[in-house]
Amino acid sequence: MKPQNSLNFSGGPGALPESVLLQVQQDILEVPEVGLSLLGISHRSDWFAAVIKETEDNIRSLLGLGADYHVLLLQGGATQQFSMVPMTLLRGKKHPAQYLHTGYWSGKALPQARLEGPIDVIWSGEASGFRHLPDDSELALSPDAPYLHYVSNETVEGLQFNRVLGRDDVPRICDMSSDFLSRPCEAERFALIYAHAQKNIGPAGVTVVVVKDDLLKDAPTNLPAFLDYRQQIQAHSNLNTPPVFAIYVTLLVTRWLKHDVGGLAQMDQINQAKAALLYQTIDQSGGFYVGHAATPNRSLMNVAFTLRDPELEKRFLAQAQAAGFYGLAGHRALGGIRASIYNALSVSAVQTLTAFMQDFQHRTSH
Amino acid sequence: MKPQNSLNFSGGPGALPESVLLQVQQDILEVPEVGLSLLGISHRSDWFAAVIKETEDNIRSLLGLGADYHVLLLQGGATQQFSMVPMTLLRGKKHPAQYLHTGYWSGKALPQARLEGPIDVIWSGEASGFRHLPDDSELALSPDAPYLHYVSNETVEGLQFNRVLGRDDVPRICDMSSDFLSRPCEAERFALIYAHAQKNIGPAGVTVVVVKDDLLKDAPTNLPAFLDYRQQIQAHSNLNTPPVFAIYVTLLVTRWLKHDVGGLAQMDQINQAKAALLYQTIDQSGGFYVGHAATPNRSLMNVAFTLRDPELEKRFLAQAQAAGFYGLAGHRALGGIRASIYNALSVSAVQTLTAFMQDFQHRTSH
Repeated sequence: MKPQNSLNFSGGPGALPESVLLQVQQDILEVPEVGLSLLGISHRSDWFAAVIKETEDNIRSLLGLGADYHVLLLQGGATQQFSMVPMTLLRGKKHPAQYLHTGYWSGKALPQARLEGPIDVIWSGEASGFRHLPDDSELALSPDAPYLHYVSNETVEGLQFNRVLGRDDVPRICDMSSDFLSRPCEAERFALIYAHAQKNIGPAGVTVVVVKDDLLKDAPTNLPAFLDYRQQIQAHSNLNTPPVFAIYVTLLVTRWLKHDVGGLAQMDQINQAKAALLYQTIDQSGGFYVGHAATPNRSLMNVAFTLRDPELEKRFLAQAQAAGFYGLAGHRALGGIRASIYNALSVSAVQTLTAFMQDFQHRTSH
Repeated sequence: MKPQNSLNFSGGPGALPESVLLQVQQDILEVPEVGLSLLGISHRSDWFAAVIKETEDNIRSLLGLGADYHVLLLQGGATQQFSMVPMTLLRGKKHPAQYLHTGYWSGKALPQARLEGPIDVIWSGEASGFRHLPDDSELALSPDAPYLHYVSNETVEGLQFNRVLGRDDVPRICDMSSDFLSRPCEAERFALIYAHAQKNIGPAGVTVVVVKDDLLKDAPTNLPAFLDYRQQIQAHSNLNTPPVFAIYVTLLVTRWLKHDVGGLAQMDQINQAKAALLYQTIDQSGGFYVGHAATPNRSLMNVAFTLRDPELEKRFLAQAQAAGFYGLAGHRALGGIRASIYNALSVSAVQTLTAFMQDFQHRTSH
């Protein structure tokens, strides 16, 4: 059986809503209100200026952001933000920025930051295999740090914070790549949030940055234009030709979130229901399935688990593939199984997976 | 009348071949050999590794490149290359790199290069309004320059070089964004070529870089990973999530170039025929239409012209739009009219435009 879009549990690029795909399919040949292929419309057209504005406005309204926040649509993924943040806020600084090392992706940010200035890794879960997240009491937060950087959801290990970290007098910078717009996030408590699109909000090729105006008041003036948040803000993300297609699809997903889903609180309820189905299946398997993350730190987006008998994992993955599931193999850095259940994955898709898991356990335990 | 894809004379993002659009339209819901939406396939899948490899191979074979060249598919547009080139080759250098200032886009490269090291602008057409290009005798080429940088085709002004510039003992770096893969280009005489996709070879969101291996032997080792050509080479452009969609569409266009068109020599013949039709119409208009570029420097890609009577330009553009043409207004930096006739624009589309031009002249001259 071929894999099904509706059963795409990939860690990303992930599934998008079917209504969005159907609209995009039409637009490839002709965007109705323009008459041209989506791929041949000028980025300087009034139509595209309106696309950027509505995308900005939708993100602003979904997050409840005030006028002192800017919304940017950039290229380069979270990886580019690993560098842009310290280029902007850490170069030439005496006090180190504080970083948390809670998993694979927060670890990727560290060497890029060190290229730009001093950092202090105030907590690391590496020695214990990235199975849990710190309590507030474990974090020695400094009032002198230029900023605090952390990752809200570790995609590989399936660990997610359920609170906002840090001090109110130190700018909070958060990589929300894998849970952005999946739930309300108290966005105004952050100075800068970044998220590439390819988990919850669009295709690969565009990255959303939400940044508070006053964070940039002392930013260097000698950065290359495309790495300069202020120049990007001034140009409304149209400094040079932006990724028109990826931005447009992101617009359609934000419309779906606002109008079809009804907002982030509603999205959160659906995502909680999906995660509960999977974690219950794991917890009620009598140890046949073993969750990776400590229970209080379990992610609503990425459910990472193993089978008690590692010999069975290959058979599990092969049978899942034969049943039309896609993307269930764990990240190459961790192995095992991972079910990524981003916004566009339906409750019924998760029910299909949990039924498969129960059936697999039943068949192989007898 | 709505604008027609077949009459899209935009400066870019430009028209793509209809056969490519039809294939992409199908792939949005399901890539046949995978079964999933193009937007939901993992960038770490075997399928996508094969997409990157075939795209690299096609570009390599179209250009006749040897094994000592690498083909990269990056984000950030030509603008990112304006910085990556001097970050890699100019930082800490004593001798200035040599730059030509032949129009709007080569001018955009200058301030970005100056941020990284010393440059020497050895020729500028600014004072004469960017209407012609230099002869070799006008270029004081230094054997000590770390590299020579120029733009092969100035998109805004419609100026194009018909020869390779520079010395064989100094690396040639060329921005071919608006004429890459439109004709044979003696690629092996260059150390590095870059071109964003959205003119001739794909949608906005991906940039092709062709780089000779030995150019990078002394490159700095402290660049952010995504700005480090060597790390990108090692990762086959899959260092972090690449723009899957834009790369895949670029693959389809290279297939079209190889198999439908038959290669760059054939593409060049078609492009020459298209440009000849437009320049003949201008030259035979008795001064009603006035070409911007000096005759020997006329571009085969962008035909920039004005009307003798500037009052008529608005009427020309309005009537052209009403007739289904798109994108004929000149770049905001120059004004006037510009017909961009990239690879995917057909000879018959250009004939439709020249017939319109002749008709417009006839109607308004009487």
